[in-house]
This record gives sequence, C-alpha cells and structure tokens, in this order.
Amino acid sequence: MFYLIGLGLSYKEDITVRGLEAVKKCERIYLEHYTSILMAAEKEELEEFYGKPVILADRELVESGSDEILLDADKKDMAFLVVGDPFGATTHTDLVLRAKKAGIPVEVIHNASVMNAVGSCGLQLYNFGQTVSMVFFTDNWRPDSWYDKIWENRKIGLHTLVLLDIKVKEQSLENMARGRLIYEPPRYMSISQCCEQLLEIEEARGTKAYTKDTPAVAISRLGAANQTFKVGTIEELSQYDAGEPLHSLVILGRQCHELELEYLLEFTDNSEKFKKDVAADQEYFKPAPWVPPAEEDDNEL
Amino acid sequence: MFYLIGLGLSYKEDITVRGLEAVKKCERIYLEHYTSILMAAEKEELEEFYGKPVILADRELVESGSDEILLDADKKDMAFLVVGDPFGATTHTDLVLRAKKAGIPVEVIHNASVMNAVGSCGLQLYNFGQTVSMVFFTDNWRPDSWYDKIWENRKIGLHTLVLLDIKVKEQSLENMARGRLIYEPPRYMSISQCCEQLLEIEEARGTKAYTKDTPAVAISRLGAANQTFKVGTIEELSQYDAGEPLHSLVILGRQCHELELEYLLEFTDNSEKFKKDVAADQEYFKPAPWVPPAEEDDNEL
Repeated sequence: MFYLIGLGLSYKEDITVRGLEAVKKCERIYLEHYTSILMAAEKEELEEFYGKPVILADRELVESGSDEILLDADKKDMAFLVVGDPFGATTHTDLVLRAKKAGIPVEVIHNASVMNAVGSCGLQLYNFGQTVSMVFFTDNWRPDSWYDKIWENRKIGLHTLVLLDIKVKEQSLENMARGRLIYEPPRYMSISQCCEQLLEIEEARGTKAYTKDTPAVAISRLGAANQTFKVGTIEELSQYDAGEPLHSLVILGRQCHELELEYLLEFTDNSEKFKKDVAADQEYFKPAPWVPPAEEDDNEL
Repeated sequence: MFYLIGLGLSYKEDITVRGLEAVKKCERIYLEHYTSILMAAEKEELEEFYGKPVILADRELVESGSDEILLDADKKDMAFLVVGDPFGATTHTDLVLRAKKAGIPVEVIHNASVMNAVGSCGLQLYNFGQTVSMVFFTDNWRPDSWYDKIWENRKIGLHTLVLLDIKVKEQSLENMARGRLIYEPPRYMSISQCCEQLLEIEEARGTKAYTKDTPAVAISRLGAANQTFKVGTIEELSQYDAGEPLHSLVILGRQCHELELEYLLEFTDNSEKFKKDVAADQEYFKPAPWVPPAEEDDNEL
C-alpha cells in the first residue's frame, strides 16, 4: 500500500491517529520537503515520534524519482508525508496517478491545510474565490498573473487567499552552473514583502484590482502555538513585522459580513479606522444602486 | 480552556493525536451534530475511544445555549467537537467570539474538511471559486441564490463545490405546532436530487450558467473506506445512484487542466465521451479569440 498522509500544520502530534498508525507499519517513509515545512517539528523529532527513519524528499526526487519512491509499494507499505493535506500541490496528484498506473493500491489520509484552516481568521470559507501564489520577485522575473485573479475575485465580492513563496534547498545560479551541490539557506516570504510586491504591481497596472487602502488579514504561523492574526490596509501591512514564518495573507472582498468583521476587529488596535477602511473599500466593484423604472405600473403592486 | 476540535471526515481515528490528547483531559465533551455527521463512527464508539461521555449538541443548544456549553471553561477544560474542521460553519465562529468575550481561553485544533479534502478528486484547490450550498426544495421554498454564484465562478473559469443539505433532528411542521418533541428520521441529499434541482433552476432561468451537458464530479463518502468518485454530465448524474451519504458535487469550470482531466478520466467508463463533454462545455464563457489588429506595423515585429 502507498499511503499519502497529511501532517497538518505545525506540531508532530497534528498527524491523525489513523495517519500515525499507518506510518508506524510502513517500511519506508518520505517527507515532502519543498512546498512547505512543519513549523514545530524537525526531522529528528518526527523520527523519534514514529520510531522510524524519515527520508527528506526534495522537488527533484518527487518529480523525477517517483519510481524510487514507489519501489515495492505493491508488496510493502510505504508512506509519503505531506505538510498540510496531500492534495494541496499538483505534483502529488501526479504521484497518485503514477502509483495507480503501476497497479499500486493508494490510501490517502487527509489533514488540515492552510486552504481550510484559514477559516480561523474569522472569514467564511464560502466567501473565498480562487487562491493565488506570490513568488519572490527577482531582477528579471516579476510574474503578476495573480493580479487578474485577485481582480476577478474582488469583482464578484470574494476574499483572496495569497500563499507566499518558500525556497528550500535552492542553488544559486553560480553553484548550479558549476554543478556544485551547495544550497542556499531556506527563505520564506514575509507578509511585508508580499504587500510590497502587491503595491508595486498595482502601481504599474493602475487598474485598481485593489488599492493601498484595501483591507487585508496577515496570518502568521497558522496552526502553531504562536499563531498571529493582524488586520490592516495593504500599505500598513507592508510595514508590519509578522515575525517567524510561515506567513499568508487574505485580501478582503466586498462580501464581508457583519460577523466576519466583528471577528476581524479582534486583530486591530484601531477598530474605528479598520471599519472605515472596510466600508470605503466596499465601494469598489459595488453593483450600481437600484433605480426604479421610469414608468411604473401601479397595478403590478 | 475551551477546545474546538475538528474530527476529520469519517473514522474515529481521523482525530489528530493532539486533538485526542486534548479530549482525554476534558471535563465535558460536546459533539456538534447538525451540520455534518462522522460517517464511520457512532456516539457510543467515540465514547469508548475517548473513555468519556459525549453530549450531542443540536442547533438549538449551539445557537441559544452557548452559556451552557461554555460553563466553567475558564476554570476547567471543555471540548466542542466538530466533524471536519471547526471553521466550516458560521455558528462556530460565533461560539469562539462568545468565549473570548467571556475571557475564556480558546484553542483550535484543525482537521481536514470537505473544503480541502475535495482535492482528492484530482481537481486543484487553486481553481475553485466560492462554495455553494444546495438545500432540499419544498413545495413553497426553492431558494436559488446559488445559481448566480455558480455563474460567477464559471464566467471566470472556476470549479464550484456544491455542499448538499442534511436534516438531522428536524421536526415536522405538525409536531412543531403541537409542541411534540418527535423528530423526523435524518435525511441526506443525494447527488441525483441535487442534479435534478440544478436542472430545474437552469430550465426556469434559462441563462446557461451551466447546462444539462455540463460536466461534474459526484463525490460520495469523501474520506471513508468506500469513498467513490464518478464523473458525468449533470443530466447523467441526475440518474446516478451514489449510494450511502454523505454526498457532494463539483461543477467543472473552464480552467480544467490536462492533469486534472487525466485524473478525472479514472472515474468514467467512457473517457472519450467525457473528454468531448469537457471540451464542449469549455466553449461557454470562453474569452473571444484574439484577432490581429486591422493595421499592422511590420516594424514592431
């Protein structure tokens, strides 16, 4: 059996009881180690908890070395552990397809991921549109296809979850060119950097998918003991120090209900200002007010 | 401490290790019992697993009796268990607000919910728009505000998750009028009924937010041992017997990528027909094809 097991967000004990039972009977255990990290547990702690060695799987191994990962999984139990839920990232769907094609039985053990745990900021999951990813800009590469997606969401009133880039086990261009297996220290995008990139692209485009005054929710270390929420405008959050990673951001949509707003007010020192910011931002993309028809037919009332 | 703990989707062992540790030290344990059910575990099994009695909490208790639920939670440990993740339903956000206002510390232990586990059908969570709910139509009440939301999602190419109504501990109008505490047997909407309601409203509106030929994914018993996926058009799925509850449905958007489609083909006996259905449906809301400008300036090439 090939087990695909979600680890949840933070602690080693965030694995489900069923997930832990499966891990304990597995012959080989891989931990996917490039799309996210488990905030409160290192590899060694997991190994002690499982009573088994854990193999870190980087992007190359998962995308090109799936034969190695799936080896003997038709006869023995193997586990592939993923921070969050196994179906957050495309490449794991691919791994399941490969396993099925090789006639290997697959069992998925789900867990919380940022995609649903984000609800703990008080915004309703029902009111979220498509999720976007923000990558680290470089001198030559400043992709902004997410801009149109945020725009699409906001036109129909929806919140947007922005997932922030992480770089684990990346080589510098120089080391890559010289074939040196030296890796850069891991990097995790901060909320302030994300907001700066948002502001830069809005300034370049100027079509007001959002503005510097659009309210957003800064989410740091979701699911960890020191999880923190902070609300503010995008400009305010571009100056906000959210502390240790991992960070994510939610850009508010017009459909911000009363109960949602009440919950968000817990995360600001200036409730009155935030309420005003939300009210002002809701004017964007607001449907035109209803105008009574010019000629009314009294009989219809 | 007031613990709000997600139970995941199906088995008693779907609770996280951290969640189980918390439950075991709690004085009182409530199980929210009206927005969803744990498919593979009855109350008695949970009580045996936890070594503690479990109190079933119906809508009335949660919405009006929160004082009872929160009683002494400032001094002792209390747990409120929710199938899926605690932040799926609005009323639980409300419970957290009440606890905070009463100065009671709150800890949330997340878990998988249909909102993220739906990714296991092979469709990418990134490509989902807002989620909608489908309620049981009655003779006098056939709400269809979800129609516009599906339309909004599909106009921008996104998939729509449709959550199906469940009725647990409901009284008949007669019993309610007579004040008799007699409850109807629980009812869970089936995929076929959902599709019939979709077709009825599309016929009434006629604006083609989707058609009878729009492809969809029928999801039954997500996360359980007998979990099943089936793809087909909405009309085909209106005839489909998806078996035991719980059911959900995903209506496809135009942004159906190759890998998504390849995964979905596992769930049909007629791949060629399904591919054609998807291609035909993608014509709806397709951006107009690019037309070269009338006067070209060769120098610009």
